[in-house]
Amino acid sequence: MAELFQARTVREARELLGVHIKTGRRAERVPLLEALGRRLAEDVAAVDDVPGFDRSTMDGFAVRARDTFGASESLPAYLDITGEVLMGCEAAGDLEVGQAWRIPTGGMLPPGADAVVMIEYTEELDDRTIGVTKPVAPGDHVVRAGEDIAAGSKVLPAGHVLRPQDLGVLSAVGLSEVSVARPLRVGIISTGDEVVEPHERPGPGQVRDINSYALYGQAVRAGAQARICGIVRDNFDLLLERLQQAVAECDLVLLSGGSSVGTRDVAAKVLDTLGSPGVLFHGISIKPGKPTVGAVVDGKPVFGLPGHPVSAMVVFNLLVTPLLKYGAYVDDPLEFPVRARLKRNMRSAAGREDYIRVRLNREGGEITADPVLGKSGLISTMVQAGGLARIPADKEGVEAGEYVEVKLF
Amino acid sequence: MAELFQARTVREARELLGVHIKTGRRAERVPLLEALGRRLAEDVAAVDDVPGFDRSTMDGFAVRARDTFGASESLPAYLDITGEVLMGCEAAGDLEVGQAWRIPTGGMLPPGADAVVMIEYTEELDDRTIGVTKPVAPGDHVVRAGEDIAAGSKVLPAGHVLRPQDLGVLSAVGLSEVSVARPLRVGIISTGDEVVEPHERPGPGQVRDINSYALYGQAVRAGAQARICGIVRDNFDLLLERLQQAVAECDLVLLSGGSSVGTRDVAAKVLDTLGSPGVLFHGISIKPGKPTVGAVVDGKPVFGLPGHPVSAMVVFNLLVTPLLKYGAYVDDPLEFPVRARLKRNMRSAAGREDYIRVRLNREGGEITADPVLGKSGLISTMVQAGGLARIPADKEGVEAGEYVEVKLF
Repeated sequence: MAELFQARTVREARELLGVHIKTGRRAERVPLLEALGRRLAEDVAAVDDVPGFDRSTMDGFAVRARDTFGASESLPAYLDITGEVLMGCEAAGDLEVGQAWRIPTGGMLPPGADAVVMIEYTEELDDRTIGVTKPVAPGDHVVRAGEDIAAGSKVLPAGHVLRPQDLGVLSAVGLSEVSVARPLRVGIISTGDEVVEPHERPGPGQVRDINSYALYGQAVRAGAQARICGIVRDNFDLLLERLQQAVAECDLVLLSGGSSVGTRDVAAKVLDTLGSPGVLFHGISIKPGKPTVGAVVDGKPVFGLPGHPVSAMVVFNLLVTPLLKYGAYVDDPLEFPVRARLKRNMRSAAGREDYIRVRLNREGGEITADPVLGKSGLISTMVQAGGLARIPADKEGVEAGEYVEVKLF
Repeated sequence: MAELFQARTVREARELLGVHIKTGRRAERVPLLEALGRRLAEDVAAVDDVPGFDRSTMDGFAVRARDTFGASESLPAYLDITGEVLMGCEAAGDLEVGQAWRIPTGGMLPPGADAVVMIEYTEELDDRTIGVTKPVAPGDHVVRAGEDIAAGSKVLPAGHVLRPQDLGVLSAVGLSEVSVARPLRVGIISTGDEVVEPHERPGPGQVRDINSYALYGQAVRAGAQARICGIVRDNFDLLLERLQQAVAECDLVLLSGGSSVGTRDVAAKVLDTLGSPGVLFHGISIKPGKPTVGAVVDGKPVFGLPGHPVSAMVVFNLLVTPLLKYGAYVDDPLEFPVRARLKRNMRSAAGREDYIRVRLNREGGEITADPVLGKSGLISTMVQAGGLARIPADKEGVEAGEYVEVKLF
């Protein structure tokens, strides 16, 4: 079967999967406080202006700006104090020509006022008169009604993943509940006759399941509702049964393990038996992570990830994380946001993207990336690393001192 | 009161707080799957080697390396096939001189073998004999027992915040439960006579509570167990009562609001009445975020954050996030990990750190930071921004085209 498929680039793999995946648009309403990290199911628009009134940003006096034109320390503009704004209250009247009202930071300007004079630029002659020693322009020290958010404007777009400040803005427009996409349900299956559960003591030739737990962590971090579906022997019928159940109950399924050619072939055959369109690619031109099988079954992505934990995690990062986070493969200009100086030469084959585990540090004002060497079967190398550096397919390596782009993890 | 205190740098503020804070070391045991993002309460050491045996990384034949020395395509080394390793099983016997055992990727080497020959470099003469066409050295295509994790070695240190790969390594060493620090309980109080709940319709002069929700999001993201304690009027006795209750029930308390001098003074007086040592600083030399009050009460940090949402979030980021994440102020070389080219000139006052909201993008292979301008009272500016750029205190500004260091949010 492997012969039928040509290894794909990451971009090609994403495009192929993207054509067949239907992640659906199931939404649910959740209280604002539970919406952090969730993806908005619909656009959010503001009903009213925020703030709903012209608001002072300083302690001082609300005035008509034109009454202060030409004012200076030697020739102050004298205004009558005719009122005081109380926090959270409407002004009890209008501000007329030649008048000033005391106003605190955050207070509502009285009708007629269009600026605030800071207290530092006033001198109080008596409790009924101030001298303004510096002119203000209309709008000075004022947040105008709707300046933060205008009534009717789109505050956040559908698909946006909510951050702390987004909770703030949703509160500002009066939403105490939001409609968000349901998290994708991810089923995680490990396969291998040698794999045992973490609480078991491995016998000779046996190892504990690492991938299920690392992938679970990645899935949860990307916003999914992950479920570990256990360890399955390398047997066509057992694998088929467990996978069918996982595809029925989940939105995305991961099968990891099967590093030997024999077990890999069984896994690929099973993935192709599950449904239509089945296996889309077998192998991607990256290192580590080459022996990855990508399939779609009834619109649901099903991945056959490599058995080596480093490889499985790298492929998850590139092909699964975007789906869980954004519901689709979207261009993310900040996918590899950190620019770091590589500490040693790393070779790479042209035509293949390489992903290097790196220790990150700061030296002389810039960030350095020190490659963690070691086989992709060693989970300890991922633990030592703080990021993943990418060597693009068109390069044959990177010299010490050159820059690489890094994703933190 | 403000006059008694000199504005502190961020570093000084952290040091002052660090002296008096006792965040405690309360730990709890949680199942492995719930440990993601939690902080280890104790060192984790491996009891046994991982893997527990010499393990093949290829499909091929287990051999004694010296039996292949000098082998070539023209002069293969002939070995007797005397056994086969089954996945997850111990070899049924020893490998003697001149012998080869079939072995799958992940299989356990038989006693006597010290290397694996890839199947690609063998020719099978009959089902009892192979010719090896390329020599191997001892250890080739083998992960040795303990090569991933050596028995007795420290796998992860106390204080480490668990990432997906760390769940993998904890599983590898057989931990299905881990001892982690309890999340810090953060109490969030908003103050202001003008502030109403998000579900309320603001009357004239009123605004909805933004800060409680944005700060809640920041606290949860930093690993805390956050609680919104509601809105309190600007009144000494009411504030004191609510703060006392929050300090009693939480590990860290945030009071935000009170932008006017009058209410700020009330808040500071209340913070200083709560207990010992009380207020440590009043004002930090950053923009936005200057009017911040830092206090410690019976070892618990209590912050009086500015009322403007942008200012409150910036100060949270600098002074609260590290405490929630690491339990203390630790040097994090990756606190501002992204280097971006600034798109326009930004002025700054010397002696003050400036934090600029920026839109991030990628142009011509590098990341650019486009400042989001706007008053610090506008939460919408935080929503438009994807990061926070720092202009250090010793600079008087940054020119367009220069690089800035950015923290993503």
